[in-house]
Amino acid sequence: MRYSHFLGKSTAEISRTYDSINHELLTRAGYIDQVASGIFTLLPLGKRVVSRIETIIREEMDAIGGQEILMPSLHPKALWDKTDRWDTVDVFFKTKSRHGQEYGLSPTHEEIVTPLAKKYVSSYRDLPLYLYHISQKFRDEPRPKSGILRGREFGMKDLYSFHVNHEDFASFYATVTKAYLTIFARCGLTDVKITEASGGAFTKKYSHEFNILTPAGEVDLVYCDSCHFAQNSEIVKKKQGDCMRCGEGKLQEGGAIEVGNIFDLGTRFSDAFGLFYRDQKGEQKQVFMGCYGIGTTRLMGTIAEIFHDAQGLKWPTQVTPFHCHLIDLGRETTSYAALVERTLIASSISVLFDDRERVRGGEKLATADLIGIPVRLVVSDRTKKNVEVKIRGEKKERLMSPSEVVSFIHDFYENDRHTHSS
Amino acid sequence: MRYSHFLGKSTAEISRTYDSINHELLTRAGYIDQVASGIFTLLPLGKRVVSRIETIIREEMDAIGGQEILMPSLHPKALWDKTDRWDTVDVFFKTKSRHGQEYGLSPTHEEIVTPLAKKYVSSYRDLPLYLYHISQKFRDEPRPKSGILRGREFGMKDLYSFHVNHEDFASFYATVTKAYLTIFARCGLTDVKITEASGGAFTKKYSHEFNILTPAGEVDLVYCDSCHFAQNSEIVKKKQGDCMRCGEGKLQEGGAIEVGNIFDLGTRFSDAFGLFYRDQKGEQKQVFMGCYGIGTTRLMGTIAEIFHDAQGLKWPTQVTPFHCHLIDLGRETTSYAALVERTLIASSISVLFDDRERVRGGEKLATADLIGIPVRLVVSDRTKKNVEVKIRGEKKERLMSPSEVVSFIHDFYENDRHTHSS
Repeated sequence: MRYSHFLGKSTAEISRTYDSINHELLTRAGYIDQVASGIFTLLPLGKRVVSRIETIIREEMDAIGGQEILMPSLHPKALWDKTDRWDTVDVFFKTKSRHGQEYGLSPTHEEIVTPLAKKYVSSYRDLPLYLYHISQKFRDEPRPKSGILRGREFGMKDLYSFHVNHEDFASFYATVTKAYLTIFARCGLTDVKITEASGGAFTKKYSHEFNILTPAGEVDLVYCDSCHFAQNSEIVKKKQGDCMRCGEGKLQEGGAIEVGNIFDLGTRFSDAFGLFYRDQKGEQKQVFMGCYGIGTTRLMGTIAEIFHDAQGLKWPTQVTPFHCHLIDLGRETTSYAALVERTLIASSISVLFDDRERVRGGEKLATADLIGIPVRLVVSDRTKKNVEVKIRGEKKERLMSPSEVVSFIHDFYENDRHTHSS
Repeated sequence: MRYSHFLGKSTAEISRTYDSINHELLTRAGYIDQVASGIFTLLPLGKRVVSRIETIIREEMDAIGGQEILMPSLHPKALWDKTDRWDTVDVFFKTKSRHGQEYGLSPTHEEIVTPLAKKYVSSYRDLPLYLYHISQKFRDEPRPKSGILRGREFGMKDLYSFHVNHEDFASFYATVTKAYLTIFARCGLTDVKITEASGGAFTKKYSHEFNILTPAGEVDLVYCDSCHFAQNSEIVKKKQGDCMRCGEGKLQEGGAIEVGNIFDLGTRFSDAFGLFYRDQKGEQKQVFMGCYGIGTTRLMGTIAEIFHDAQGLKWPTQVTPFHCHLIDLGRETTSYAALVERTLIASSISVLFDDRERVRGGEKLATADLIGIPVRLVVSDRTKKNVEVKIRGEKKERLMSPSEVVSFIHDFYENDRHTHSS
């Protein structure tokens, strides 16, 4: 991709004030554009990062038996009346057809997925069933804030599971917990704390929120510095000393961002829609459900909050928008830079090529730091028929031939893939 | 993927009446589920087909320089007031925030993309610019009909182009026309007729609709049986004789489904938002725009209307949900069938494996015909350590070893790829 015609060319000056790091850096570097309060467009860079996050989520959901579907955003009122939630969900956007039919705009999908499962589940042989989708969600937030962390429209993966009993749910709950930790680790987020969630309908034991520690966080936690244990600091009494979960770590206090959640739905929704199954003896039984969310755009914002320095963003390798950022600093190296670009692309390496004319070298280097792609390549009059390679955040620069660069980049991302995948 | 736990297991009986072939076959075969009038869930099979259509569209849009973004569905009223369309678009769903802010639900995105371009375009050096996205669209249709062909919520790709003058738009218009014909051809749709569109804001010369001929079509055309020429039969006078465009073909009458359109927007939207650029002399000039749509879910419905027989669907190779449909008919061949499945998957071949117990062989074969995956594989007591291979719609069955099946399927799809890609 040539940067000279790229939508989202970075603006060096800060032309406004921002309420968060993710909002500022993602805007200045050209990942997002704010349309209105809590409503954003993903620019090409942002769309690429979110697509990579979605691919990671899909791979891990498919690996545990998830089936991907796509449920609609327009939800008929009649379905939400069945669960008595039409009037009680306070963030619900609503609309009407010309004929007076009322719809809600999907904040979540229990009211769609449960009657869907009812059409295909009748016997114990049809269970368990794991359905997920990635779609836009709408929430009428009173105060959208923190850039893309809390918006009125955002991307989210939600998974719904259906079981013959609560034990089977509990077993799958453990499987999803592990998959979630893998997803976050692949996104570079290894410091995950798990708190009890307030929204569980059945038991608190299996309703949890996944939090990433950061001073920019919206919630305050008391957490263990060794295991995943954490509690909301507003409700917890013991705030220091040994961890009551693992007994090994020490309790700490700090801010965090919630990036995922798991809710034990029990039979609340299956009962409301009459979703039952027949067991081996032919007896009618209740279906137990769980629901599991991850905000995809929120995850991009969280990664931006964690991975940056004074110069800009620093993407973890598995979610970077491009493998490398190529800069032409020379006076007569344009055709050589284009040759390097072609060599990389021919080796399945994605390249953001800053081919802008009339832009000073210093500005190009600053733009590369701001955008934060892990591998920076510089071609100049000084590098001759080589390329200067530098890793974002490191000081060392290495001179390599184009074919050495290809091997280096393949190794760089391959090694990382093995580190991050489980 | 194992069919025994697959969401959307086909139902042999027709339990209701349908107003179209695509609605009936896509529902019975488990591709879609109707939630309400004009509102559908894509089940795993349908999601896979739409994803393949989206991949084809992305490849062809990227090939002509398109940059993928994702614009929101919630559109602030103020932006639509600027173009005087808030009250004039009659299919507009509207909603309000708790604070009284009014939003429309995206039927199209000129009001978002134009102010976005204004932030990044100031000089002739920033043009041309081609932006596209694939997102859900909402239209308050008076009468949703024809399955997924005309709904209240649907998937759509829309591309917007920005140019220094009308000549540059006209040149890109020709490029997009060619890309559209390639996209439709890769979806198996080669009988494309192009009519003048009624919705062009600037000139009719460069506003067109792309139609696929089918008796199930919603529009009636007079078209040339040789070139792409066609006109809406309601407005045309000459309905038979030689084609006035190419002079070689004969005029025919018939139904068609509109699957894409191109509109010459002129400067209507750039003027409304004050989107200008400075030319080489520093003079301020108007920006010329075009918009180009393809309905992604509608395209799946159209393909279903064209590619089916009395037994069910017959997917073109590039949009099939799986490469092959594996059926175990034997009494003691379960582990051998699983071995064949593993062999195929290890060779990057996607498999829908009908592993259902307690289902008769005849029903499994009928299900395979209904679902319509191009390559059917059967393992039975009779096939021993081989596999019976049959192409959907052909009568000939061939016995092959598992490794021969792998080569056969690779060749089958590779040959086709070269045929359909341009």
